[in-house]
Amino acid sequence: MRINEERLKERMERINSIAVTEEDGMMRLALSDADKEARDLLVSWMEEAGMSVRVDDMGTIYGVMKGRDEKALPICVGSHMDTQPNGGRYDGFFGVMAGLEAILTIKESGAEFDSDLMVADWTNEEGARFVPPMLASGTNAGQFTAQWVYDRQDTEGIRYEDELKRIGYKGDKENRLTKAKAYLEPHIEQGPVLDAKGISCGIVTGALGITGLDVTISGEANHAGTTPMSHRKDALVAAAEAISRIRKNCIDFGEPAVITNGIINAQPASKNIVPGSVYFSIDLRYHTDEGMAELEKQTKDIIHKTCAELGTTAEIEQYWRAKPAIFNETIVRCVEEAAAEKGLSAMKIISGAGHDAVFINEIIPTGMIFVPSIKGMSHCPQEDTKWEDLVSGAELTADVLLKLDKETV
Amino acid sequence: MRINEERLKERMERINSIAVTEEDGMMRLALSDADKEARDLLVSWMEEAGMSVRVDDMGTIYGVMKGRDEKALPICVGSHMDTQPNGGRYDGFFGVMAGLEAILTIKESGAEFDSDLMVADWTNEEGARFVPPMLASGTNAGQFTAQWVYDRQDTEGIRYEDELKRIGYKGDKENRLTKAKAYLEPHIEQGPVLDAKGISCGIVTGALGITGLDVTISGEANHAGTTPMSHRKDALVAAAEAISRIRKNCIDFGEPAVITNGIINAQPASKNIVPGSVYFSIDLRYHTDEGMAELEKQTKDIIHKTCAELGTTAEIEQYWRAKPAIFNETIVRCVEEAAAEKGLSAMKIISGAGHDAVFINEIIPTGMIFVPSIKGMSHCPQEDTKWEDLVSGAELTADVLLKLDKETV
Repeated sequence: MRINEERLKERMERINSIAVTEEDGMMRLALSDADKEARDLLVSWMEEAGMSVRVDDMGTIYGVMKGRDEKALPICVGSHMDTQPNGGRYDGFFGVMAGLEAILTIKESGAEFDSDLMVADWTNEEGARFVPPMLASGTNAGQFTAQWVYDRQDTEGIRYEDELKRIGYKGDKENRLTKAKAYLEPHIEQGPVLDAKGISCGIVTGALGITGLDVTISGEANHAGTTPMSHRKDALVAAAEAISRIRKNCIDFGEPAVITNGIINAQPASKNIVPGSVYFSIDLRYHTDEGMAELEKQTKDIIHKTCAELGTTAEIEQYWRAKPAIFNETIVRCVEEAAAEKGLSAMKIISGAGHDAVFINEIIPTGMIFVPSIKGMSHCPQEDTKWEDLVSGAELTADVLLKLDKETV
Repeated sequence: MRINEERLKERMERINSIAVTEEDGMMRLALSDADKEARDLLVSWMEEAGMSVRVDDMGTIYGVMKGRDEKALPICVGSHMDTQPNGGRYDGFFGVMAGLEAILTIKESGAEFDSDLMVADWTNEEGARFVPPMLASGTNAGQFTAQWVYDRQDTEGIRYEDELKRIGYKGDKENRLTKAKAYLEPHIEQGPVLDAKGISCGIVTGALGITGLDVTISGEANHAGTTPMSHRKDALVAAAEAISRIRKNCIDFGEPAVITNGIINAQPASKNIVPGSVYFSIDLRYHTDEGMAELEKQTKDIIHKTCAELGTTAEIEQYWRAKPAIFNETIVRCVEEAAAEKGLSAMKIISGAGHDAVFINEIIPTGMIFVPSIKGMSHCPQEDTKWEDLVSGAELTADVLLKLDKETV
């Protein structure tokens, strides 16, 4: 399929000009005025294309292009239009626009399809305004209750539900997408792999599970001058050694394992006092449940052993756990075949980031398509993807939708 | 010499009951009402003993017991009565009370002495209320100007000079101690060495120099999920590895070298973002100038090399530099001889902490006597020293003063 490049470009530029920061970043926080303006445009384009538009109780917008078979389950493609503060031009937004453009292309080509083809714009994927992320898709998947989500507040104490009503996008619960033949999410990779390898398409086979740990190491606060090295129980020395060792262990564990220590601080935080306690966070990701559990165990063991060697102790608490997602095999195969037929360079890849697709995967057969992120930059104004990769991503989306329409998923 | 134990105990308990925290800690911040009350008692005891009392423009109090020789330079003993917030019972305070008791003991014994024997209470040694520490002794030694010290403010914006006037202890510049035959400071060790070895007396040969460094490591902030380990420039991984290596190097460098990283933090400080930059502090101490310079150079080299290996860079800035102090050989010998004559277990030791003696050493032949700190605890209510060690420390002080009176320093 060949999409209408001009139309896609013009529409993306139109919405990406709504709320631009001084650094040329995007500022479409969920349920803000900018989000409403983008939603209104999206709805107008859906209606202009002859789609029926529905909005659910979380504010998610669906545009439905009628298929031939009343009884067939719909096929949905989508992502999100909200952005991080000072975020990128394509994160999420590309998936919504590629989905819309793909369905329009199919319709205009005269190709026949049985299932309804839908495009979805999930509310508050970023979690930048209302924490946590993926509130709407998570509610669809039964992870959150509507009331709990309604009561989420932004940093100014404004409630999700109040903003949803204010911008006029509080719809009906019965409009939620809970059953479909397939859900497909085109997205930028947000990582450096495809770009570094010069590959245009990522066939996403799943998403890494996440284990979040809070580590507190206790030693003994002491005077920096009067305490000889041999008398110290330095909590930061133990933390530094542990961070170094658990990283090496993670590398040895093998890809796609990743470990990140994003936050660290030492107490009492005085330049001339040996730290008596240190806190640091661990974000550990892997693609299988068993591997995740094993990596978590090894990581904890190393920390405890390191602390014991250095006269300190560690308390480790899990603050977050997200299961790895394994996407639907048929959808993965359809993406692979369509990319090959189109002559695109492609590779299988596991998503390191969370996406609406990860929650929707719990209730609907799901897959994703990645387009490259230049230098892996994301959540910043420098986030970018070559136009040709966006175009082939949108065209591939159309090809996959047609394939899925013919497949038994 | 045998001191009057009862008198020393009673007086120490009297002042240590002035401002006691809930945790049984001392709260005699410099120039506070509690400090004034302690000063007033000290002055009354000096006058009662027939000492002439003078106060200098920094608020330091001197009690002078006349010697036989009008032309001889005075011999001064002293320390400070101010405490940390919730501090210990003996830090500083012991030196003042031991000095006073030693001079009274000498006087009462009928022993003859040529030099005037003085006891000094230096203002604001702790630096807990007015930063930096040792403001009064530093001014005597020409490190600070009086006006600069007067303008130091506590956290509530109250000026040093205004508080000095308020409590009635702003004296004359001409009263400053700037010339003397010797200055001797008895002090608790504030470290664990004497206690761990079961030794009652530290013959202090000098004090460690200090180099303070601010280290900022720059890497690349990245998504914790989408950035494979091999693509990362993790500033915290580099910092952890560097902290581990510079510590090992410091241990290999040998005692009395110590290194402390008291403060650390990572930016952007998000659990799911690879840190793009990390700050940590270094407090490095050694007892010789050349060794200090060499250890500083090695430490910096290791940090730069570690950062280079891990795709990061480091900026290192010196925020503080204090030269090592080498105390007067004659005074050190007198302490050693007096301890041996008294049958005290003693060892040579280098002070890891700063003391008024370190500044006074710049202008007057100086020495120190340490008494043990149980478990090395200091700046906390748990700080403690056995009463017998305090008594023998005070008696040793009297013996050393008499020796110094006879020596050519």
